[in-house]
Amino acid sequence: MDGPDRLLTATKRRELVDAVLGRFFSLARTRAAALGPDYVELWEALEANTVGGKRFRPRLVFSAYTALGGCDDEAAANVGAAFELLHTALIVHDDVIDRDFVRRGSPNISGTYRDRAVRRGASGADAEHQGISAAVIAGDLALFNAYRLIDRSGVADDVRSALLDLLDEAMFASAAGELIDVDLAGAPEVPKVDDILWMERLKTAVYSFEGPLQAGAVLAGAAPTVVAALGEFGREMGIAYQIVDDVLGVFGAEEETGKTTIGDLREGKRTVLIAYADSTPQWGAVAHLFGDPELCEEDAGRLRGALIDGGAREFAEGLARYYANRALARLAEPHIPTALRAELHPIADAVLSRVR
Amino acid sequence: MDGPDRLLTATKRRELVDAVLGRFFSLARTRAAALGPDYVELWEALEANTVGGKRFRPRLVFSAYTALGGCDDEAAANVGAAFELLHTALIVHDDVIDRDFVRRGSPNISGTYRDRAVRRGASGADAEHQGISAAVIAGDLALFNAYRLIDRSGVADDVRSALLDLLDEAMFASAAGELIDVDLAGAPEVPKVDDILWMERLKTAVYSFEGPLQAGAVLAGAAPTVVAALGEFGREMGIAYQIVDDVLGVFGAEEETGKTTIGDLREGKRTVLIAYADSTPQWGAVAHLFGDPELCEEDAGRLRGALIDGGAREFAEGLARYYANRALARLAEPHIPTALRAELHPIADAVLSRVR
Repeated sequence: MDGPDRLLTATKRRELVDAVLGRFFSLARTRAAALGPDYVELWEALEANTVGGKRFRPRLVFSAYTALGGCDDEAAANVGAAFELLHTALIVHDDVIDRDFVRRGSPNISGTYRDRAVRRGASGADAEHQGISAAVIAGDLALFNAYRLIDRSGVADDVRSALLDLLDEAMFASAAGELIDVDLAGAPEVPKVDDILWMERLKTAVYSFEGPLQAGAVLAGAAPTVVAALGEFGREMGIAYQIVDDVLGVFGAEEETGKTTIGDLREGKRTVLIAYADSTPQWGAVAHLFGDPELCEEDAGRLRGALIDGGAREFAEGLARYYANRALARLAEPHIPTALRAELHPIADAVLSRVR
Repeated sequence: MDGPDRLLTATKRRELVDAVLGRFFSLARTRAAALGPDYVELWEALEANTVGGKRFRPRLVFSAYTALGGCDDEAAANVGAAFELLHTALIVHDDVIDRDFVRRGSPNISGTYRDRAVRRGASGADAEHQGISAAVIAGDLALFNAYRLIDRSGVADDVRSALLDLLDEAMFASAAGELIDVDLAGAPEVPKVDDILWMERLKTAVYSFEGPLQAGAVLAGAAPTVVAALGEFGREMGIAYQIVDDVLGVFGAEEETGKTTIGDLREGKRTVLIAYADSTPQWGAVAHLFGDPELCEEDAGRLRGALIDGGAREFAEGLARYYANRALARLAEPHIPTALRAELHPIADAVLSRVR
């Protein structure tokens, strides 16, 4: 498929997914109206936290589905929307766990409701708590309805059951990863590289890569070997993506990533970069600056310098390339249809292009 | 059905529900073991917070189901277990929202993980936050799997779909009620009686009474008029139950309720009692004591005295009787089968017997 056609297809797929989510939220708002305007507002906040994303997971569902011969775009859009809603649920609750009130520069649900409570006269801690409470409720609604979107997608019984198994696996893994993340963040010592990779795979890669790709394949009626290979590809790719994401969180161009490159350093976020750096002498000299919420740009520069000089950046980028190449190797296996290979290769390329 | 037979039936039903939940948790622990011992521990904590309850909701499912001629006890046990797991999810997250670390005298999930973090050297606020984080994750798992238990119960397609609609309604209403509860708790003025009844109906009565009763009826293939009447009965009954619960929270015998009668007064819990009392002169003289976390027994006695003297207790008990009688009136309607009437009458009687 050449450039403009691909773009056209991507736009059309996105519109289909947005339409599914639009109908879902419209129905929910109508139902909520019977229970009062405040409940409608909560649904609106949840919708605002769902729209506007890159629809990354639905795109993976579509990629696997169409490359494997699927042609019921409506069904694929439903399944994609379910993974998108699962994503919303998980980040809304992740923000509760991280006590974050902002995501990508805008107030998230906790932030929206905290600010609302402040306007109504609540004090700082109480307002934060009201914000977090609303986010717990909103995340529950998104989580429950992720299941519901697949359940009501109208696909055949055995397919529905297999799709729900995948959604279940994704949720099960993500909860395990989130628990490990809480544990690692609270541990006195810096975790090992392997522990971080394991956590990131469970917390994010399964529901963002493995699940959507396998769901697309299952929906297309693909052979079990193909579904399994897509799981492997998704796992390697997802880990590569996470490592790149952590590298860009410190070294990325803010206009590209939409995130500051000082946030992770101020927060003391323990990534593969830091796990590696922890064993280097360069890091030892500046480690006391790491995690300082008031960290200035100059000291952030010293931390970045230590990550470069100690080889942490190079190591992380090499590791990301390693996982992306392993992912590509899975695509080269003989039972992978050519169309699927052509569809997924650019995804690996895109990840690789984000590291030097 | 006479006394001993009824007891035997109740025990058998309970064992069936416990068996479903036992198998569910056993499978989850086995799956979790592949992801590490900490994850198994979280599942164990979730199981500990699920077992030992009164299995109130499963009992209602069975009551409606068997009285309406259903005889697949295994299917009813699955549906009952789903409502029980939904209940676990909602109370685990409710405890997050209420910042409670104890339920019925034992540490809940937040409490268990807070204490664990303290043993590992975390400070007070950080330990509390680790506890709350674990509870957010555990509640998500319970919520997701409530859906799953019905989905995998093996019932016919149209029945499954109708049951999932009921679970959806229950979740949808409970989230709305929880949101109103957060709002009412944060509002400067004491809410009106109607607002509290509305909140309690949404937050608890729908998923605890209406949902389980209607699910039992749907599973038994009952006529829509019967399903609707059970919804009405459940609604009136659920509201009556909540009012009684609030009265007993202040005036109950602790050995019976398992709750202290000072907790609600210390917490400043806004119930129908307080909403009524707020307009009485007796309350005005002592209202400053209400919500004092250090409230002593003597002052608690003064608050109770004002609730009695101002007529709040009598009003609340009368209101509970009113709703219970309305519920009974629904049972008297001609399209309600005799067996169903016989099965549900004792439930209303039990609620009525708890008020003077």
